[in-house]
Amino acid sequence: MKLSNQKIADALVAVRTTHPLVHNITNYVVMNSTANALLAIGASPIMAHAVEEVEELVDISGALVINIGTLSKPWIDAMLKAGRRARSRKLPVILDPVGAGATRLRTDTARELLEQVRPAIVRGNASEILALGATFGTSLGGTRGVDASHTVEQARQAAQALAQKFGVVVAVTGPEDFVTDGTREARVRNGHALMARVTGTGCAASALTGAFAAVEPDAFVAATAALVVFGLAGELAAQGNPRPGTYGIRLIDALDEISPEQVLAGAKLA
Amino acid sequence: MKLSNQKIADALVAVRTTHPLVHNITNYVVMNSTANALLAIGASPIMAHAVEEVEELVDISGALVINIGTLSKPWIDAMLKAGRRARSRKLPVILDPVGAGATRLRTDTARELLEQVRPAIVRGNASEILALGATFGTSLGGTRGVDASHTVEQARQAAQALAQKFGVVVAVTGPEDFVTDGTREARVRNGHALMARVTGTGCAASALTGAFAAVEPDAFVAATAALVVFGLAGELAAQGNPRPGTYGIRLIDALDEISPEQVLAGAKLA
Amino acid sequence: MKLSNQKIADALVAVRTTHPLVHNITNYVVMNSTANALLAIGASPIMAHAVEEVEELVDISGALVINIGTLSKPWIDAMLKAGRRARSRKLPVILDPVGAGATRLRTDTARELLEQVRPAIVRGNASEILALGATFGTSLGGTRGVDASHTVEQARQAAQALAQKFGVVVAVTGPEDFVTDGTREARVRNGHALMARVTGTGCAASALTGAFAAVEPDAFVAATAALVVFGLAGELAAQGNPRPGTYGIRLIDALDEISPEQVLAGAKLA
Repeated sequence: MKLSNQKIADALVAVRTTHPLVHNITNYVVMNSTANALLAIGASPIMAHAVEEVEELVDISGALVINIGTLSKPWIDAMLKAGRRARSRKLPVILDPVGAGATRLRTDTARELLEQVRPAIVRGNASEILALGATFGTSLGGTRGVDASHTVEQARQAAQALAQKFGVVVAVTGPEDFVTDGTREARVRNGHALMARVTGTGCAASALTGAFAAVEPDAFVAATAALVVFGLAGELAAQGNPRPGTYGIRLIDALDEISPEQVLAGAKLA
Repeated sequence: MKLSNQKIADALVAVRTTHPLVHNITNYVVMNSTANALLAIGASPIMAHAVEEVEELVDISGALVINIGTLSKPWIDAMLKAGRRARSRKLPVILDPVGAGATRLRTDTARELLEQVRPAIVRGNASEILALGATFGTSLGGTRGVDASHTVEQARQAAQALAQKFGVVVAVTGPEDFVTDGTREARVRNGHALMARVTGTGCAASALTGAFAAVEPDAFVAATAALVVFGLAGELAAQGNPRPGTYGIRLIDALDEISPEQVLAGAKLA
Repeated sequence: MKLSNQKIADALVAVRTTHPLVHNITNYVVMNSTANALLAIGASPIMAHAVEEVEELVDISGALVINIGTLSKPWIDAMLKAGRRARSRKLPVILDPVGAGATRLRTDTARELLEQVRPAIVRGNASEILALGATFGTSLGGTRGVDASHTVEQARQAAQALAQKFGVVVAVTGPEDFVTDGTREARVRNGHALMARVTGTGCAASALTGAFAAVEPDAFVAATAALVVFGLAGELAAQGNPRPGTYGIRLIDALDEISPEQVLAGAKLA
């Protein structure tokens, strides 16, 4: 049963009318651009990482996004604490395992967060999902820094295995995105090659997934909707073929501009 | 006695000719955009937070801006150390109590900084000022994350009480800004709704207040001037009704473009 | 023997075809803009600072950039650890001694990194290079915050002394850049005054130097090439005389746009 474009358009409208608070424990590189992406789509971002306050912020938020892009020990403690609180309150958690496979710290932390927090959604590139899968023996993977050096298709099995083992929705992003909850599958063909020329677009995808998960209880729908909407924004921003600096700004503009009608007409789902 | 537009235009000229060093201990989200806002207005930003060096940097700066947006324990130590040094040297300190009321850590830290550092100016949104006021029993407040869920008018009494108790200028920003030193009052009607669609505009307002306080000894004038100039820049940037990504860039442009003549003609003070 | 424009154009092509991984341990203010500058020139950025993982990341990188702009103790440990690993693997290290001379922490850390890590290239403004030179008794210097208050010419002798003492290439940037390895000298007259109106352009110069050093084994050529290319991008971005917000975005665009032919025609080397 294919996910309908209408459901995705409805989720976008829900984000815009509800303005969900999205609590991000994310990396230094993308904090500003992520906050602006969330504001542009109509959500309300919180960035906070102190172990002393993350639980209180989880309690007022609609979703928690954990991104391990610039990891260090004190942040891992806060991620676990916030994640466990979110889990106990049935708040959706989105895990972005940036660079899993590149270092032991990242692989181990991603694994620990997956096991301890049981996120609703994991969003990563193919290499990260393969690396995460490999730690559980489901496949073999590796990663070259924080770039994907594997294809989304190569990560399909690892995604399915992780989804089934942990009851998590896994979203593998790349030229074509693949989303699965272990049973259902979606392929999102929206997006633009320029997105890879701007830092933090993967992180923005995870944060936007948080915004959708805050308003759409079905995590499979939320993850797919976020990737369709972000991909469409990526296409919209690419009109006129701007260079990457300008493109990054237009991408924020496009998240504000993208309409439910454009989603209905432009979603490329399979 | 209404503050004259001339005084505000003069303060802008003073910032542009003096290029004051403004030392910021601020949050990760806005460090880049804050530095660019300060450069655009003609000031010279320093961002530094190590407890080992903040006193030396205070000693060469014209103002210190303390912003608790992404707080953690080591940063609180540095904020207190820098703040006390600034106080002992009669350097103006601007406190931005981001998210006060949202968590105990933030409320307590904002209160401690207010009591220990005795800043010249506190700039916050209505919810933050109400929360800060509430800790001293002057009113009751609360905050939804880092967004203002109260009107500026609701925070007027808390602002006045804080101003009188601590001898501090309190600036409450929102659709209309309110500034008081406990005796004098100003309302600034400059600004644009798009400013709330870009992350860190409140933080930029605080940083710019630091630039003005470095050149204008009367903190009430400095705070009001900063809000007028920033509000006018916000109006200028909104011409043509850009979307939020583009708007954020134009806001930096506008801080560079805004002229003393535009201040004289466009300040909306009451 | 003057460095040929062809060699610089060739280095640019090498960056674009090799996509070197550049590991940055840099400051919070510029992480996003630095990552985007590296992506725009064709390199692949990693930002990571945890002492637990920096060695693994050095091992997969083509260059390491250490920037002390927002220093704190745990970061110094990671800088030293990563730097020593890079040295032992003969990976080029670029040191950006931001604010050396402004505080003891910065001066001491820059000195320690220079002595312990033996970077291939040090890139700083005149005040920073003078301050670093002064710690070794080669000259007297000082710095006003993170801005250069000395001319490049004033720092020439300190640069030469440092280069000879440590076998390092020293690049002093300003209106005219000066590069020396102690024997050879180059002066780069590309660039634009607007570059100083955007935060982090010096840091971007250092990061780009890392990208060039990853593909060009002669550090003197790499440093000079990076400054020529970045200077030319700065000139290209200034067309139409944009204000600083727009200029910062166009500077990223220009790093993507700049062609080997433009380098051949526009390099201003002496």
